[in-house]
Amino acid sequence: MTGLASPSHTASCGASQLRERLFATRRYSLELTSTLSAEDMTVQAMDDASPTKWHLAHTSWFFETVILAPHLKGYRLFDEAFHYCFNSYYESLGPRQPRPKRGVLTRPSCETVLAYRAHVEEGLEELFSRSVPPGPEIECLLEIGINHEQQHQELMLTDILALFAANPLRPASRPPRPHPKQPKAPEPLRWVAFGSGIYEIGHPGKGFAWDNEMPRHRQYLQPFRLADRLVTNAEWLAFIANGGYRTPALWLSDGWSLIAREGWQTPLYWEERDGEWSAMTLEGMRPVEPAAPVAHISYYEADAYARWAGYRLPTEFEWEVAAREGAARQMIGEVWQWTGSAYLPYPGYRPPPGPLAEYNAKFMCSQHVLRGSSRATPQGHSRATYRNFFYPHQRWQFTGLRLAADAA
Amino acid sequence: MTGLASPSHTASCGASQLRERLFATRRYSLELTSTLSAEDMTVQAMDDASPTKWHLAHTSWFFETVILAPHLKGYRLFDEAFHYCFNSYYESLGPRQPRPKRGVLTRPSCETVLAYRAHVEEGLEELFSRSVPPGPEIECLLEIGINHEQQHQELMLTDILALFAANPLRPASRPPRPHPKQPKAPEPLRWVAFGSGIYEIGHPGKGFAWDNEMPRHRQYLQPFRLADRLVTNAEWLAFIANGGYRTPALWLSDGWSLIAREGWQTPLYWEERDGEWSAMTLEGMRPVEPAAPVAHISYYEADAYARWAGYRLPTEFEWEVAAREGAARQMIGEVWQWTGSAYLPYPGYRPPPGPLAEYNAKFMCSQHVLRGSSRATPQGHSRATYRNFFYPHQRWQFTGLRLAADAA
Amino acid sequence: MTGLASPSHTASCGASQLRERLFATRRYSLELTSTLSAEDMTVQAMDDASPTKWHLAHTSWFFETVILAPHLKGYRLFDEAFHYCFNSYYESLGPRQPRPKRGVLTRPSCETVLAYRAHVEEGLEELFSRSVPPGPEIECLLEIGINHEQQHQELMLTDILALFAANPLRPASRPPRPHPKQPKAPEPLRWVAFGSGIYEIGHPGKGFAWDNEMPRHRQYLQPFRLADRLVTNAEWLAFIANGGYRTPALWLSDGWSLIAREGWQTPLYWEERDGEWSAMTLEGMRPVEPAAPVAHISYYEADAYARWAGYRLPTEFEWEVAAREGAARQMIGEVWQWTGSAYLPYPGYRPPPGPLAEYNAKFMCSQHVLRGSSRATPQGHSRATYRNFFYPHQRWQFTGLRLAADAA
Amino acid sequence: MTGLASPSHTASCGASQLRERLFATRRYSLELTSTLSAEDMTVQAMDDASPTKWHLAHTSWFFETVILAPHLKGYRLFDEAFHYCFNSYYESLGPRQPRPKRGVLTRPSCETVLAYRAHVEEGLEELFSRSVPPGPEIECLLEIGINHEQQHQELMLTDILALFAANPLRPASRPPRPHPKQPKAPEPLRWVAFGSGIYEIGHPGKGFAWDNEMPRHRQYLQPFRLADRLVTNAEWLAFIANGGYRTPALWLSDGWSLIAREGWQTPLYWEERDGEWSAMTLEGMRPVEPAAPVAHISYYEADAYARWAGYRLPTEFEWEVAAREGAARQMIGEVWQWTGSAYLPYPGYRPPPGPLAEYNAKFMCSQHVLRGSSRATPQGHSRATYRNFFYPHQRWQFTGLRLAADAA
Repeated sequence: MTGLASPSHTASCGASQLRERLFATRRYSLELTSTLSAEDMTVQAMDDASPTKWHLAHTSWFFETVILAPHLKGYRLFDEAFHYCFNSYYESLGPRQPRPKRGVLTRPSCETVLAYRAHVEEGLEELFSRSVPPGPEIECLLEIGINHEQQHQELMLTDILALFAANPLRPASRPPRPHPKQPKAPEPLRWVAFGSGIYEIGHPGKGFAWDNEMPRHRQYLQPFRLADRLVTNAEWLAFIANGGYRTPALWLSDGWSLIAREGWQTPLYWEERDGEWSAMTLEGMRPVEPAAPVAHISYYEADAYARWAGYRLPTEFEWEVAAREGAARQMIGEVWQWTGSAYLPYPGYRPPPGPLAEYNAKFMCSQHVLRGSSRATPQGHSRATYRNFFYPHQRWQFTGLRLAADAA
Repeated sequence: MTGLASPSHTASCGASQLRERLFATRRYSLELTSTLSAEDMTVQAMDDASPTKWHLAHTSWFFETVILAPHLKGYRLFDEAFHYCFNSYYESLGPRQPRPKRGVLTRPSCETVLAYRAHVEEGLEELFSRSVPPGPEIECLLEIGINHEQQHQELMLTDILALFAANPLRPASRPPRPHPKQPKAPEPLRWVAFGSGIYEIGHPGKGFAWDNEMPRHRQYLQPFRLADRLVTNAEWLAFIANGGYRTPALWLSDGWSLIAREGWQTPLYWEERDGEWSAMTLEGMRPVEPAAPVAHISYYEADAYARWAGYRLPTEFEWEVAAREGAARQMIGEVWQWTGSAYLPYPGYRPPPGPLAEYNAKFMCSQHVLRGSSRATPQGHSRATYRNFFYPHQRWQFTGLRLAADAA
Repeated sequence: MTGLASPSHTASCGASQLRERLFATRRYSLELTSTLSAEDMTVQAMDDASPTKWHLAHTSWFFETVILAPHLKGYRLFDEAFHYCFNSYYESLGPRQPRPKRGVLTRPSCETVLAYRAHVEEGLEELFSRSVPPGPEIECLLEIGINHEQQHQELMLTDILALFAANPLRPASRPPRPHPKQPKAPEPLRWVAFGSGIYEIGHPGKGFAWDNEMPRHRQYLQPFRLADRLVTNAEWLAFIANGGYRTPALWLSDGWSLIAREGWQTPLYWEERDGEWSAMTLEGMRPVEPAAPVAHISYYEADAYARWAGYRLPTEFEWEVAAREGAARQMIGEVWQWTGSAYLPYPGYRPPPGPLAEYNAKFMCSQHVLRGSSRATPQGHSRATYRNFFYPHQRWQFTGLRLAADAA
Repeated sequence: MTGLASPSHTASCGASQLRERLFATRRYSLELTSTLSAEDMTVQAMDDASPTKWHLAHTSWFFETVILAPHLKGYRLFDEAFHYCFNSYYESLGPRQPRPKRGVLTRPSCETVLAYRAHVEEGLEELFSRSVPPGPEIECLLEIGINHEQQHQELMLTDILALFAANPLRPASRPPRPHPKQPKAPEPLRWVAFGSGIYEIGHPGKGFAWDNEMPRHRQYLQPFRLADRLVTNAEWLAFIANGGYRTPALWLSDGWSLIAREGWQTPLYWEERDGEWSAMTLEGMRPVEPAAPVAHISYYEADAYARWAGYRLPTEFEWEVAAREGAARQMIGEVWQWTGSAYLPYPGYRPPPGPLAEYNAKFMCSQHVLRGSSRATPQGHSRATYRNFFYPHQRWQFTGLRLAADAA
């Protein structure tokens, strides 16, 4: 999940509460690490994931590189070598630590990275404490920095889960908390109908949005129906029991090859013992709750399930229309929802100028759009026009699905 | 390139000339092999390509399996073992020779495969010679078989080219023929403008079409412009000379990784010697003609070129609208044209019943649509609604590009 | 199996019958192809194997490059491009067709390769028909060429077997011939004892030998015993039935990883159906004969079997001593016998000068020595000092084992 | 480097100072970690290397599993889950954390692993404090445990070096210490001559030795000469400057493929900047000292150098004879010395009973023997009969070479 809006794309960023939100966001990143040791924060679980320490440093490097170095006169880089260590993928900003090798960075230490964060925050404080306030351009960059850090907050959680799931001790990364009592059986699924016509899609321009949510434009939609809730674990168990993972006719060709090669027979992190299903979570191994939305599935699995159920995945446009109209339950805050839409630029899309051009645009190929947000998405980071994207085989995020259908 | 229409999807197949077209198509497959030895026809150049012999046998297996075995009473299978050898990818029809191992089939021999073709054609003749004519269902299946074989005719050419390009002797697979005199310099590029609005997209239902061209449905398009001709070799050379293959800002992230890893610096088959460019073709090594359309480029390269030129690729809908209106040159018969559209089902799409469900539907992920047709596409196999599809890294087909732009 | 003696290493090559043996060897290569089509002769079964056509051409290229071009005045190269096509691995002779791509050479055709062979043989005839006979240096090179071609004759058989075993039709590459009636049960195994002491090892210098068999030198051997026959299929079946392939304690660490990764549970080419074992052979699928020597096993399997049986593999020196003394049955002509000796240079070894330095020396690492010869080895190509060598995982050759033990 | 002697193979282990040596060894392991953070100790640099924490835990698991659990009545396992986490490769002891995944074990923490060490040491103390002393069998196991831990002490150093060399900050893992002043130029190389004859090879049986050093047995050696010192960096620079890494004739075939594929042009860890050479060391980046022994080379490089220099590598037997006679300088304490000998069992070799059978025996294939010891080998761990072994491509250990030659 990666995205970046350019100043020219983000409408008025809201100056008054910006500072407060900025530092609250920064603090929240550290709160997420409260149960982690320096060891936990350093190791990289797999190529797709990054160490917590790297996330903490990279989000600071981002503020330093995009705002402080060019815009805060007299700002001193914390350590010049960090530019190489913590650049993620910006070709225009020079060479960088290869992504699969982020986990060898035992130095700088977590302690040094915390000092780096403090140093960057001092710079950001200074920006606000000047006689002349930041001004709209820098305000927008700060807004981008906040949203960027929020994206990494979610990744910190999914990446730690990947790490702890690979550990034979299956440690919890946070204490178990009282869950809202889930009903034993899923709610009956209800369908919400939408008529055909031209719909406005994309961010309307007020408040923050990433460049990939714009420009707002028109799409013609055929009439469709959308499930008013997500697919549940109970339903997924029925799919498994019905031979879903063994029936080639349900699968895209690439998906069938993948599950055969990898031996996938369940969502990621699921285990069966003596007929009981449990799954690795941030709270350690927990029973699979029947009424909870299924999570950690790939696009291939979501697509196969929909076919098995006799339905299809929604397009991202259908999802957005429904979300805007508030017409269905569980749109945000549960799991990211795979859509049938490929991640492509909207008509008329222009990437922002400068290095932020690389934030979203260069990933617009071979990925699918996910809509909504997950239980790991920070408060305030969700909206109806938000476009998340992953490759169809990826499933270490909190990814699930909602069914759609053509009009009856 | 693979596709299949179900009877229910193909409008009236035209009974009267069907037989003639069927056998003309069968003969043309053999004509394409006239310069090839049995050795040439047996070897598999790479995993993506298939041996000529395999194409000849598979297209016969298709008629045998889909039409003769179920519909011609008393038909005798030529050899039961061929079902395993020449099933391409139909999971519903059982296990098969793995795709990358099609080239180990030195047996059955080419001679036997020709006998297999004759045997199948006898069956097809018998179908027509009966007192009761085939009827619409079988006519439609025959139409599908013809179109299927035509698709493989194009693949026979591209796969032989791949084989001969890997041969240090760089043999020609057909005698050089007098080319239409190409002008030294490309024609100036002109733009054709199209207005916004709701357009009908997809096959209207009269005449043959694949299932993936249907259903006809509505798309809203923003105003756009389309180049009236293809990008030329001369223009591509300017892209190379300007550092196109060395400038990361032009490339999608996956594309940049790919060209770095593989060392791509030109289209496939190009070679430079003493400042002169030549390329491997069906007629052997030939000078790169400046005014001819560039060919053998991947989606990544097409996309990077468009960005470098300050434009973009058209969507498949824009292309179809322009083709229908006959508004631009070089729409068919030159090179397949990469579009910015991912290969996905049309709204309301339903795959055909039976094994033909696997023809197109299961490939609708991670590929891009190409429109038009190429110099290798058989006569009569092109149309404005045709959807070809390949992965973004593939370039052994005759693939090129046409520029598009938003309205000025 | 590859080796080359330099003139300085091969003792008197025997001038009188040389010509006759040369052309008999050349003819025998063609006889081996009598049941093969051009298609069969062109395809490469796997990276380790080569096409028959390539073997036919390479052995001709060898005579052309090593003898005719430098030593026959006025000799005209058949085709300069063949130097690239048919150089096997001689770095000193320039770039070459990559080994895994030998199978794309559908051109030159088999017919052309036969013409190439004839052309080279004309050159060789001319060498003999001159007023001045070849002389010892060229005689020795001719001897090397004969032995080189004999090595490729064996490879032609093993490589065709690999090709036909990968073909679902499981074709035979020669008509079934009446086998010597094998007894139902293996002969009882008898042990032959040898005393300790200093033994002379290596070729004594009279007659042809490869450079890697020299120099003759001394080895001290502890007392040992050698089985007087090979391990049989019946014994191997007992090993399988006893869980040999599932017992890690029997295996070298690398071997255990390999069989787990590849799922090996039998020798190569074995198949079980309804409790009956059969194996792919040059005569097609045939029942596994209990009393016949087991074949197509890797070093790892040979070593595991010996450990399971409570014995060990012989060293190559032990084998040579026994062979020289004629003390045991089945030393040659059945299967190559894995020894516990790594393939390393003998003390005092010097590779021959010129390109032939690359024949054997550069492979002296990570391989194991096999002794004896196989049913596929040409007549007259076996001797007690012969050193064949393969990597421990390879098993597409006719490879088996004989047990050894320390003195009781 | 891994080895294990069985009780029956280790001659009198020396009871009196055993306890003192045991705890001194345990303390020394911790001393080696004094400059490392918990982060440094947790990360795995590459598949071949292990985290420091894992080494600390594994060596404790070894004492617990081999001695305390079976032999100390009432001993309580520290944590049952550690059996899975810290078993290295003992198939007979059950499943284990896959080797390339040792670095995901952020839990147990370093702190817990230290507690584990203390717990095991309490158990060991108790063993000694009993009224009945341990007895010869347990004494021998303790001796094995000490030597095992010493082997891991060396690996801790080489693995940390691998980790820090992969870090763009190139941290030092210990403070730079005053080096013995190295002369600018290497000492002139002198040759020591040895006569032919039968030599006794292998451990004579007094004092500790690994099973792979036994049994003592006879080898016949031809006369040879051995360089009285190691090959130096200055000499290696001459090899580089002379095109050593670009001359295929110098290389084994596998080695040449490897250096081409990997782009090797120097020993591991070397870097050139502005004509100056430096190398990553435990003390960070340091200038390459001309007179110091070259280190971090693979067998392929050692072998190529020897060929370039006109010599060869010694066999392990030659090395042992020379070491026993004290005839040459720099035999131990500098770098491990590649020999031309494959790592194979000595004649009459029997692995020890029980799980220790897996210590050395199952690795006796495809590796080469290194003799001597390195600057990282703990005091008292070297001897003339010691056999270390690595694959020919490995070079993250302190590996160098000494030249040998046949008698003039």
